[in-house]
Amino acid sequence: MLKNFLIDVDGVLTTGQFLYSEEGKAFKIFGPHDSDGLKLIKNNIHISFISADKRGFEISKKRVEDMGFTVALCSEEDRTKYIENNYNLETLAYMGDGIYDVEIIKKSKLGMCPKNARKEAIEVADFVTNSNSGEGAVLDACLFIKKNYLD
Amino acid sequence: MLKNFLIDVDGVLTTGQFLYSEEGKAFKIFGPHDSDGLKLIKNNIHISFISADKRGFEISKKRVEDMGFTVALCSEEDRTKYIENNYNLETLAYMGDGIYDVEIIKKSKLGMCPKNARKEAIEVADFVTNSNSGEGAVLDACLFIKKNYLD
Amino acid sequence: MLKNFLIDVDGVLTTGQFLYSEEGKAFKIFGPHDSDGLKLIKNNIHISFISADKRGFEISKKRVEDMGFTVALCSEEDRTKYIENNYNLETLAYMGDGIYDVEIIKKSKLGMCPKNARKEAIEVADFVTNSNSGEGAVLDACLFIKKNYLD
Amino acid sequence: MLKNFLIDVDGVLTTGQFLYSEEGKAFKIFGPHDSDGLKLIKNNIHISFISADKRGFEISKKRVEDMGFTVALCSEEDRTKYIENNYNLETLAYMGDGIYDVEIIKKSKLGMCPKNARKEAIEVADFVTNSNSGEGAVLDACLFIKKNYLD
Repeated sequence: MLKNFLIDVDGVLTTGQFLYSEEGKAFKIFGPHDSDGLKLIKNNIHISFISADKRGFEISKKRVEDMGFTVALCSEEDRTKYIENNYNLETLAYMGDGIYDVEIIKKSKLGMCPKNARKEAIEVADFVTNSNSGEGAVLDACLFIKKNYLD
Repeated sequence: MLKNFLIDVDGVLTTGQFLYSEEGKAFKIFGPHDSDGLKLIKNNIHISFISADKRGFEISKKRVEDMGFTVALCSEEDRTKYIENNYNLETLAYMGDGIYDVEIIKKSKLGMCPKNARKEAIEVADFVTNSNSGEGAVLDACLFIKKNYLD
Repeated sequence: MLKNFLIDVDGVLTTGQFLYSEEGKAFKIFGPHDSDGLKLIKNNIHISFISADKRGFEISKKRVEDMGFTVALCSEEDRTKYIENNYNLETLAYMGDGIYDVEIIKKSKLGMCPKNARKEAIEVADFVTNSNSGEGAVLDACLFIKKNYLD
Repeated sequence: MLKNFLIDVDGVLTTGQFLYSEEGKAFKIFGPHDSDGLKLIKNNIHISFISADKRGFEISKKRVEDMGFTVALCSEEDRTKYIENNYNLETLAYMGDGIYDVEIIKKSKLGMCPKNARKEAIEVADFVTNSNSGEGAVLDACLFIKKNYLD
């Protein structure tokens, strides 16, 4: 039984790429399908987001809140501790893509990562999506959860 | 005989990707060749566009109108019904890329999707383009229509 | 003997992709290496650019002029005629990527296209680069010209 | 023993791509993971950046300084000389992607390039990363340095 689906923003909901101008971080690149996926399961599992990107947090926040969800800012180093304090790992689905996600992917009931995640994350994930991040990876994860845990 | 060619904007005419700033959705990424393709057949088949992206609708509208066509805003859930009410499926070519396009791709006389569409769409399409969306998929579809239905 | 190298801008010097906002075409995506390549041969062959993109012409112009070259605006339909009137095809190297480039690629002394050009262009090109457009295709072409025609 | 890690910005820390508007170079595209990698080794090796992109230097400078490092502007032609004058090649790890990086990659104690570097650079590199530039190539290089030179 899954109660929460926690999703890392950068490199999962985005392609991982961001645009810098002379003024700093200006844009992040998001992709298709993911919003469709989240709508499919949001009434059956609590969905929330996490990000370690302090400098681009307002961009992530805007996108996540536009979709009707919330996002927490938490440094990479504190990620595992923060999640252990705020979620029950036994009922948590977690999706991340980086080297700081490895530990929590391992500890979560369902640990997932996009196809183009770091190989360190892919090696420990329970489910690796068929799509890259920013190309439908979150929809893949939502369909996997729906089929195996919610239907 | 085909009378209408209806094209989903996001993920077909665009790469599917969009850029967010702190202020919201700012840009969509369009690609080469598609405008050339539409010009090739526009005198022989009625071309129009559809989008479910409310937040980025003004961007899609600007691009579609710059090319000389029109675009309708319609939620994913209402898409099939809207199309059935406004088009004759027996003379409709439809091109879409997502899970909400599956039904209408199946029902249309000619259902098409880009190479990088969701596999759910690819499985039911009559024609899958050789190019990805935002890399000439719409030109591929135009050439396919021209060769098989208009020449 | 080659005297002129004429390069199509969109899909050759750019990835082919462009960003639209609600206000219209705002940015084009250029890539690495190409400027290095042009510098290598510019003293031995006359380099110029051509574009059919009226709406994004000021963007192309800015980039081309920043590199020290000039660009002419000419519609796709008039491209072949324009080039025949302004260049000697017997001493012309031409690089393009689309269906309207096919004829001039065939007629030029050296017709080239990027790896990710339309297959219609690839089929008639004398040389297809190893790199995609916006990823060094123009440098590839410059090195090919240097090795086979200038050294 | 390595004392310095010098990194070319464009095509190594960025995808190599940049966005032009009518006003000129506006944005560069950076990617995920690299900042994580630099943090892993920055206390054990001196990290600095180099760029030949005069026009986009302020963008590169903003990104590099936001991560806590410095970047020097130096033309491609002067790169090798500049590095020889300012670094000890016997203790230098260098990472570049273009044809002007070939000589310094060869001369450095550890010469590296991203997977999508020019083939001229790949042929002479001691280590080619598993990731493309702007997709974690710098993290790959940091992990390689950490494992083989710092642990």
